[in-house]
Amino acid sequence: MNHEFFKIISRVEFEALLNSFAAVGTKKVSISDACGLVLGEDIISPEDLPPANRSCMDGYAVNARDAFGATEGNPAYLECSATLKVDENPDFELQPGECAAIPTGGTLPDGADAVVMVEHTQELGAGTIEIRKSSAPGEHTMLKGEDAAKGDLIFQAGHKVRFQDVGLLAALGIKDVTIHRKPRVGIISTGDELVEIDSPQKVGTIRDVNSHTLRCLVNDAGAEAVNYGIVRDELEKLENTLEKAIAENDLVLLSGGSSVGMRDLTVQAIESMQNSEILAHGVAISPGKPTILGRAGNKPVLGLPGQVTSVQVVMLALVVPFIRQLMGQTNAFSSTDRVLVQAELGRNTVSKPGREDYVRMKLTYREGKLPLAEPIYGKSGLLKTMIQADGLMIIPADTEGFYAGNTVNLWKI
Amino acid sequence: MNHEFFKIISRVEFEALLNSFAAVGTKKVSISDACGLVLGEDIISPEDLPPANRSCMDGYAVNARDAFGATEGNPAYLECSATLKVDENPDFELQPGECAAIPTGGTLPDGADAVVMVEHTQELGAGTIEIRKSSAPGEHTMLKGEDAAKGDLIFQAGHKVRFQDVGLLAALGIKDVTIHRKPRVGIISTGDELVEIDSPQKVGTIRDVNSHTLRCLVNDAGAEAVNYGIVRDELEKLENTLEKAIAENDLVLLSGGSSVGMRDLTVQAIESMQNSEILAHGVAISPGKPTILGRAGNKPVLGLPGQVTSVQVVMLALVVPFIRQLMGQTNAFSSTDRVLVQAELGRNTVSKPGREDYVRMKLTYREGKLPLAEPIYGKSGLLKTMIQADGLMIIPADTEGFYAGNTVNLWKI
Repeated sequence: MNHEFFKIISRVEFEALLNSFAAVGTKKVSISDACGLVLGEDIISPEDLPPANRSCMDGYAVNARDAFGATEGNPAYLECSATLKVDENPDFELQPGECAAIPTGGTLPDGADAVVMVEHTQELGAGTIEIRKSSAPGEHTMLKGEDAAKGDLIFQAGHKVRFQDVGLLAALGIKDVTIHRKPRVGIISTGDELVEIDSPQKVGTIRDVNSHTLRCLVNDAGAEAVNYGIVRDELEKLENTLEKAIAENDLVLLSGGSSVGMRDLTVQAIESMQNSEILAHGVAISPGKPTILGRAGNKPVLGLPGQVTSVQVVMLALVVPFIRQLMGQTNAFSSTDRVLVQAELGRNTVSKPGREDYVRMKLTYREGKLPLAEPIYGKSGLLKTMIQADGLMIIPADTEGFYAGNTVNLWKI
Repeated sequence: MNHEFFKIISRVEFEALLNSFAAVGTKKVSISDACGLVLGEDIISPEDLPPANRSCMDGYAVNARDAFGATEGNPAYLECSATLKVDENPDFELQPGECAAIPTGGTLPDGADAVVMVEHTQELGAGTIEIRKSSAPGEHTMLKGEDAAKGDLIFQAGHKVRFQDVGLLAALGIKDVTIHRKPRVGIISTGDELVEIDSPQKVGTIRDVNSHTLRCLVNDAGAEAVNYGIVRDELEKLENTLEKAIAENDLVLLSGGSSVGMRDLTVQAIESMQNSEILAHGVAISPGKPTILGRAGNKPVLGLPGQVTSVQVVMLALVVPFIRQLMGQTNAFSSTDRVLVQAELGRNTVSKPGREDYVRMKLTYREGKLPLAEPIYGKSGLLKTMIQADGLMIIPADTEGFYAGNTVNLWKI
């Protein structure tokens, strides 16, 4: 295969290729264990919530018409026909001119459509209640099915479960849900110059930083990282490790192939796998251009730049959303899934047209103003630029940059 | 103890009380397992990173003075005195008029302070190199100690470890770090009306939603949730469960005590613990006013509102940052630790002065404009208001609200 035929593709084209991979399988888990995972089924409400009209306050259940327009100076007078308990299902219908004492959480009788808080009433004796405040239908009550009506589509497959969603599932009596399992992500570091991080500094060696940052990013994204250590620049060794990693994982990340030689080795190793192909060889983002996407069987393999900060940006820009897609999340690449912070740009920031730039930015918070965002300049080989960064500013491929004073969106990291 | 003496305190006062509790203990872990946890030690750089001046490009190491002002039309000519390898520690000094071929990552010889990229040079034979581009000191090189100098304070105790920090630690050869262990958080649901979530709907019973949402929130915050199930409204049973939970955890959360009776029972149970006291009984936030803070020995106990959405807001506003403080994080209550999204308020939103309001808000993203934020009105007993919310808008206690069109900060949830 002649790799000269590969041309650099845009980020959007690269995402489209990533989108062709299917999500991992599903399993049933307790709702408490579903938080942060993605639903593999639509959730239909099995019942009405609340199951009946309920009072939100201690007070009197009324028909709002009977208390309409009531004030301190011009109260309404109603006859109290019952004193309801919280666990009582009233079997009578409230008649015009009647009310019923009701506790918080109590079920409203038929004929009642609102609750007047006890502090706006006065017992006058002989069952007469003075109502000193006007009432509107639905006031201080939760209506049957107001939170969820039986048969409602509550959450769609592809929705990421949040704590508040777990609350609604619990309230509906749903104990288990089907979610996509955590994808397993194999991480292989490649390069003759790489040494374990506890090796002493030696000229010509570089400690294997990427295994550790990738592991953190993969786990943070909600997947399960599996490290395969450092593989030397030998095709056979790389093939053996890659084959094992593909068999054991849903996605394999190779890092280190930033030199032309290593990139070729990565491509060769991917191509030597059964039923494999190279889908992309280069993406028009900076940093991150030399990223490779391959397929072995139905499993994706990504060849990432070896440069320590480039690989971090590629992980954030492409791989973390891709992991969410493998986890089953709908629109995993949509930018609204990222937390964007608006800021005022502190200085002119230029970019080469034709590529999407991910500029590391530092935020300074200011009282009563947008935070100030300053680009962090520094050699891309330095780790400290990512350490100092609060966010990334994306300069689109069709833009030459932004001016100082422009309002920009930073993607919080 | 007469609880009438307790007055509602402000959120700031409540946080000051929470701040009096010490962080949990520390332990040493591998840097790969430190991500998301908080450092329990200052990290001092043990060496210079990079350890020597290194080339970022393939090219020629030069003294920038010798190539200053060089252009295509007016090149400089230097004699190539050596061809360096990536693992070579040069033992010579570059003389004026000399250059040395150097690969990416190679160590610069003494006397060289910049690298000219190979594409801006031409070999003319007999060791003469034509330099076609001006060079500046430091260009295309990483200077010794530029990422971290030996003895630099890299991270302070109290810093939460992020993926990029793990990268710097790895590059410095630091394999293990001391972090605060995950706090254990006991969760007790209280209330006679509560039933397990798989119980059928029955008038007068409420499924135990809070055990599940609290568990998710606690785990999301980075702690370890331990559930103690539902305890009936009996002092002795509550005391027994509370005692066990205090012994086994770093923090205990009681939820369900929103009625006056339950609040009293919570207070009594806390007071019956050894060496205990009630520190606060009510905080001026809405929702969340009936929150109780106690101490048993040196361990905090929080009595949370039972109302399903109130307890979620109190968790976000107070308990999640408190958990981060227990995890050792510096300034855990600082609002810059929260992700704030600026938005345009879609309608006038009023608040009672004297309390801090946490208004649930829905965001609509718009092209080229601030997102539009609309308050979600709905009875506070409804779960769906939190389901629909993208963020919380905080209306300070000294403010009566905001106007439509105001620029507001939403705290992304």
